[in-house]
Parts: sequence; structure tokens; C-alpha cells
Amino acid sequence: MAQKPGIPKGTRDFSPSEVAKRNYIFTIIKKHFETFGFQLIETPSFENSETLMGKYGDEGDRLIFKILNSGDYISKVDSATYESKDSNAISSQISEKALRYDLTVPFARYVVMHQNEIDFPFKRYQIQPVWRADRPQKGRFREFYQCDADVVGADSLLQEVEFVQLYDAVFTELGLKGVNIKLNNRKILAGIAEIIGAKDKLIDFTVALDKLDKIGEAGIKKEMLQKGISEEAIAKASPLFSLSGTNSEQLTVLKELLATSEDGSKGVEELRFIVDTIEMLGLQSAQLSIDVTLARGLNYYTGAIFEVGAPQGVKMGSIGGGGRYDDLTGIFGLKDVSGVGISFGLDRIYLVLEELNLFPEAIDRSLEVLCLNFGDREALAALKLVSTLRGAGVKADLYPSSVKINKQFKYANNRNVPYVILIGEQELSEDSFVVKDMISGTQETYNLKNPEAFLKEFESTN
Amino acid sequence: MAQKPGIPKGTRDFSPSEVAKRNYIFTIIKKHFETFGFQLIETPSFENSETLMGKYGDEGDRLIFKILNSGDYISKVDSATYESKDSNAISSQISEKALRYDLTVPFARYVVMHQNEIDFPFKRYQIQPVWRADRPQKGRFREFYQCDADVVGADSLLQEVEFVQLYDAVFTELGLKGVNIKLNNRKILAGIAEIIGAKDKLIDFTVALDKLDKIGEAGIKKEMLQKGISEEAIAKASPLFSLSGTNSEQLTVLKELLATSEDGSKGVEELRFIVDTIEMLGLQSAQLSIDVTLARGLNYYTGAIFEVGAPQGVKMGSIGGGGRYDDLTGIFGLKDVSGVGISFGLDRIYLVLEELNLFPEAIDRSLEVLCLNFGDREALAALKLVSTLRGAGVKADLYPSSVKINKQFKYANNRNVPYVILIGEQELSEDSFVVKDMISGTQETYNLKNPEAFLKEFESTN
Repeated sequence: MAQKPGIPKGTRDFSPSEVAKRNYIFTIIKKHFETFGFQLIETPSFENSETLMGKYGDEGDRLIFKILNSGDYISKVDSATYESKDSNAISSQISEKALRYDLTVPFARYVVMHQNEIDFPFKRYQIQPVWRADRPQKGRFREFYQCDADVVGADSLLQEVEFVQLYDAVFTELGLKGVNIKLNNRKILAGIAEIIGAKDKLIDFTVALDKLDKIGEAGIKKEMLQKGISEEAIAKASPLFSLSGTNSEQLTVLKELLATSEDGSKGVEELRFIVDTIEMLGLQSAQLSIDVTLARGLNYYTGAIFEVGAPQGVKMGSIGGGGRYDDLTGIFGLKDVSGVGISFGLDRIYLVLEELNLFPEAIDRSLEVLCLNFGDREALAALKLVSTLRGAGVKADLYPSSVKINKQFKYANNRNVPYVILIGEQELSEDSFVVKDMISGTQETYNLKNPEAFLKEFESTN
Repeated sequence: MAQKPGIPKGTRDFSPSEVAKRNYIFTIIKKHFETFGFQLIETPSFENSETLMGKYGDEGDRLIFKILNSGDYISKVDSATYESKDSNAISSQISEKALRYDLTVPFARYVVMHQNEIDFPFKRYQIQPVWRADRPQKGRFREFYQCDADVVGADSLLQEVEFVQLYDAVFTELGLKGVNIKLNNRKILAGIAEIIGAKDKLIDFTVALDKLDKIGEAGIKKEMLQKGISEEAIAKASPLFSLSGTNSEQLTVLKELLATSEDGSKGVEELRFIVDTIEMLGLQSAQLSIDVTLARGLNYYTGAIFEVGAPQGVKMGSIGGGGRYDDLTGIFGLKDVSGVGISFGLDRIYLVLEELNLFPEAIDRSLEVLCLNFGDREALAALKLVSTLRGAGVKADLYPSSVKINKQFKYANNRNVPYVILIGEQELSEDSFVVKDMISGTQETYNLKNPEAFLKEFESTN
């Protein structure tokens, strides 16, 4: 009895064409990671549960996929726990391993475990799938790739500068011009909290501030009051409401506003260094803009915060982000290692490139030459030719059986093959082969003893 | 309280150097898969349990990693099962998903699910990790990559010919010359079973036969008798004991021996086609040899059986294998689809290349140029230079802080950097930079305004 096949919700099969497009993005990201000196590592798909649990908050713990122990695992549950029927308590006795939830915690674990082999500063990148038992929805999956680059063991702000350049290099080569690299600093946020005299209201404050464009100064003031931020605090922070102009102009306003806050002043100084250095170095196509409302992972980042927005006109959340964090490895016993990192959002970048039609045309050209099959003797000659072409790096194939030529041409069309080669009885007797250009429809005859002539033609046009 | 970090037994972290070596192998395999017209697909890491369970025998079922359902999963177990404390029965109620055990079953599931989008014959390749709850031991892991190429929907023996060529192309480019591609056919084995009049003794028979080299004709006859194979059967099959010489000579003996068996004769014919065609096409460095004792996955393969042995003198099990199977997709409801495929054993190939010192020397050169950091002003000039080099595809970096130069040189040495660039106060004032060749120890001075001069030199020697 045949099963009707399916795949778990939130997971995906990737067809050859989808894989080709995904790998196009990965290849460009990897190339730039490597020219920037990052080294690729890989960690296991599953970790010991204690490595992951408790690192992502209660919600994270709930979303971690747990792997069932092997063998007669039930017999190892103590009877009180078993009788309690408490799923959580039982999980910890029947599952010792869990699927990776992100790449950051495994990286921290890696750095601590291998600290004696690593030359610091350690620039690593990692591109592997992660798994989350999230409710699947449009654009949210239970298995997806993360694509991270981090430097640990370097305090210098030059790292931040470099990450801005890296984003610029990757998105420029992807043809995605005009991405907006938003930059903030946790210390600026701390300074604002100090100014408004209410750390606990910081998120409400920045969320409201973020709506400046949409609801205007009056609107955000109203929202802030509703959230319980005092008139006095709002008045103090009011220069933020008219923050505009160049990065440099904004920094001048911020400097004055945050002058009484040590943290805030330090944050302004750090931003200025990054902004000035990038100005001197120049960017290819991205723009860098200060955004004091940017607060992703507030509790996690300690310095710079990055987020990349798609070019104007494309409706899409952030396509990248990151920042500086301190003491990432502290949980595993290695103190005082500062790190800074960024990630690329593969699935969203894919959607943006698709929407803007930015994938190269020939990206899913999985076959460049198909030799038709006219029968055993002809096929043998064709196979020799195919072997020569393959040896020269051409993606070439012989249709495996001598079915009707129409069917073979249909296959060539379906696979988008640009060149079809015909070696029939006549060609064989003349030691020749005919190449049909499937786009122009023209045909040309070559000598079987001189396939190089075709190869030359092929290479000059491909 | 810091945790002492570790990873689950049977799993591995891969350092930058190990990843580089593994990717070197993957890249070469992928290149040839693609010139042979194979298309890359990817399937999810976990499948619905019913897709995997029952496909690999009882032992396989036991070794499949099962994923615990989310939420209050215990409440969904019926109470009789819960009270039984039967781990197996409970598993099926608390786990709906399981990690991929191989790439073949997910591929069959893929073909059936996507049959309307696929152009047959479908040549796919897939390189992804699989997971098995096996007892870890030397060379056996709980997470490892499989690397498979299969063609489905083509009966032609040209596919078998192509796989021999593919093995030859890959191992030749890996520098692993002289691998032995062993070839057999399930129908030959069926023919032998017919001849000896005992299908149930076939495995004992071939196992004994395989020892011919070691224990001689008398030795294997004795073993066969001990295993209960009759004198008469042994006499009938005796031409197999002196099977030697070229493939063609062996086929002549086999043809005569198996003349009365329809299956056997067909098997001989199929082997002859493959052997003859390969002879006409030639191989670059591998050898193809008939081995009638080859019986891997006997119940699985229906035609050709392949296995690749490492070159003589290297002690290592098979580094690749495969064969033809019928009705792979039948379990999921798509009948009569013939397939043939091969796989490459990544971990063993890695060990062989390591043993024979065949990895390229510069394989873990993750950084080609390191600019030393002499302070803020100098660093800015260096960063400009580094940006130019990176733009030209050079793996270049600036040391992030102006610590002691000795320490920076030490870092360059540890990372095996071939060129170190120095821009100190004097160089900056002269608009120059000094390049130190870390291998020869020589130094050369270039103009900061003309980094192309260095790039030219760099490209000519790298």
C-alpha cells in the first residue's frame, strides 16, 4: 500500500532551480567573507541540550527541537516524574540532544572548546541550517539557513567599519543597489534612557520615535504620554524629534543632547568614528544612516547595532543585521571576549532578488549541450564527443535512449539547453556533428575529429 | 556558573582547515556531477516519521533519530500505552518527525512528490548530512555527509558507463590515481545461485569465493563444504575458482558457466556492454575490474553493482559504491521507475587524501595579505589599501589594533599568511607601503597610489 508522500510543515524541498539561486547568493556572500579574511567553520547539527537550553529565554527553550534518546529511554525516567505527566520535566529525562537553534551559541561553545587552537582575533563565518519549532507562516520556516560572520577578540571599531564595507560589497555584487545600512549604538539608547529618566520606558520611547515619519511630532508626543512617559522627559528629549539631515548633522545634535550622559557621549563618539571612516573610504552602492530608534536584540548588544533595509520601494523587513556584544563566551567559562558580528537573511534576500529580477538569466542552466541519441552506433560516437566536452568543463549529456527525436527535443527544451548536437547516420558516415543553437535556431556542422572548433565557439559565447 | 562545553558523541566540529579540505573534495565532486548533467536538489533535514520508518529494516528503525513533538506532548499519549512504558510504542505517539537516515529515501519521496515538475530522465545529485544513532567508533559518526548522484527514469546501460567515467573523472582530479572500480551485476549473482542450486547459500558462497586470493582453491572449497554447499554445486561452479585474466577473458568463462541461466546470461551481456564501451572510451587513471563476489546491498540492487577501492597500498574500505535498482519510488506510489546511482564516501576519501598527502599545499590559506597596524593614522591608509586588495579578490586584512609588532607578526605566522604589509609613519609620509614575503623573507616597497603594481606581482605568483 503506497504512502502519499509529504514533508513536515515549515520545511521545504529545494528544486534544482531554487538551489541554484540560493547557491548564487551563498557564493557571493562567501567570496566576500573570504576576501575580508573570515574563515569557515562547521558545528554539529545537534548539540547537548544543556548547551542550548536557557540561552534564548523561555520562548526559545520552547521552540528548540529536542531529539529523543535511543533505546529503552522510558525505563530511565524516574517514576515520580513519569507519574507527574509533566512534558517539560519528562523531556529533560528522555532527551539529551537538541537541534541547533541559531549559529551564535554553537559558535560561542566552539570558541571556548577550541580556544587553544584559535588565533585571536578570530574571524569566522558559518552558513548552516537552524531549526525552530515556530508556528510556520509565510516566510517563516522551521528549517532555514543562517549566514553569520563574527570577529571575536577584537575591541577595535575598525571591525564595525569593516562590516559596513562587507554589507556594501555583498549587496553591490548581488546587484541590490541602494540598501540602507542603519546604524545605532546601545550606548546611545542607554544615554536616551538616562535623559528621559526612565530605563523601563526606553522601548516605548523608541517605538514611538520610530513613527516620526508617519504620525509627526505631535503624534509621537501623544503616544509617549499615553505610555506614561512624563512631559518633562519628552521635553528633554525633544531634539530627537527633529533629528534629520546628514549623519554628521545628526551626530552634532546627539552630542549636545547626550552631553550629560557618559554612556551616551561614548556612543556618539563611536558612531562618529564609524561614520567618518566610512565617509573617507567610500561605499560602492549602499548608504549608511544613523537610526537612533534601532534597538534589535537590545539586551544582547552592547555597542554598535546594525540593520540592513532593502532598497526603497521594496516591501520587505530587514535583510541583515548584527552588532557588538560582550562576553558571548562567558556562559561557557571564557570571560572578557568581545565580539561583533553580522548576518545575512538568505530567504528575504532571495525574495528581493526574485522580485527585482536580479538573478542572472542563465542561473538554472544545468545543461549546456545535449547530444541526441539516434541509436547504438551513433550514441557511441556521441558519448565520445560528450566525454571530450565534459573534460573541457562543459555541462554535457547524451540522451540515454534512442526514443523519438521529438521527445528528445522536448526534453532539451524543458531543460533549457542552449545547444543540441545531432549525430545521425549521415553525420557518422561523414565523421561530423551538427550543432543546433536552440535560441537562434541556426545549425552548424563540425568535424568529429576536431571538437575543439566547437569548444572555441562555445567558450566565446558563454 | 560556567558550563564545561562539549559536543554529543559521534559528532564533530570542523575547524577552518578541515572545512577547507572537505570543501576541496566537495567542489571537485560537484564540478564533475555538473559537467555530467546532474542537478543539485536539497531536501529537509527531518522527514515525517512514516516516510522513513520501515524503509531500512528493524536495525535501521532503531538507528533513526526521532524528534520529540512540541508542547504538552505527553497529554496526547493514550493511557494504555503510557502505562505500558513501552518505549517503542510511546515513541510513535510523542514523535512525528525524524532526522534523515540517508539521501535515497528522501530522494524517492522527492521524485514522487514532484513528478509533474520533473523532466525524466532525472539526473540529480545531493550532498547533505545524514544522522544515525549508531555506536560511534573510529571512522563512524552519528552525523556525516552523503554525496549521491542518481538517474531515475532511464533503463539504458549508458548510465552505468557514465558512472564509471564519473568515478574516473573525480578521482583523477583528486590526484587519487589507480582506484579500482569493481563491477558486478545482481543477475550474475542470481545466475550463480541457480547454478549451485541454492539461493540461500549465495552469500556463503560469494563470501568464500572472495577469499580465493588468500586461502586458495582448496581453502575455499573446504569453507564452502563447511557452510553446507554440496560437492556437486561446488563442482558445477568450479570455473569461478580460476576466474582470472582480463575482464574480457573472465566474461568468456562466465558466459559459458552461466549459459543455462537466463538471468546469468543477461548479466554477462550487460557487463560486457559496460566493459566494452569503457574500453572504447578509455579511462584516465582508474581501472575497471569485474568482481563476481561483489554483493553490497544484495536485496536492493537489481542490475549493476559498483564499488570503488582505494589505490593499492592504501588500507581503507570502499571509498564509493552504488548500483541499479528498480522501483525505488514504488513505496511512495510511483511504479516502474528504474534508477541507478553512485555515492562517494567523503570521510574515507578525506583520510586517503590525507594519508597520501594529496591536498594542495595552500588549501588552508585563509588569508593572503595582512597589513600590520601601526596606529590610527597609519591604519586608515592601510584600510584603504586593504579595501582595494579585497576588491581585486585578494584575501586581505588589517590587524585590528596597534599592539606590539611582534605580536602582529606572530599572528601572521600562525595564520600562514604569505605577505605582510607594513605602513608605518615613514611609509605614510612617503606614500608608500612595504611588502614582506613571509616565505623568502625579502621586502619590496610600492607606491600607495599604485597598489596595482603589487596586485600584478601577487597575481603572477599566486
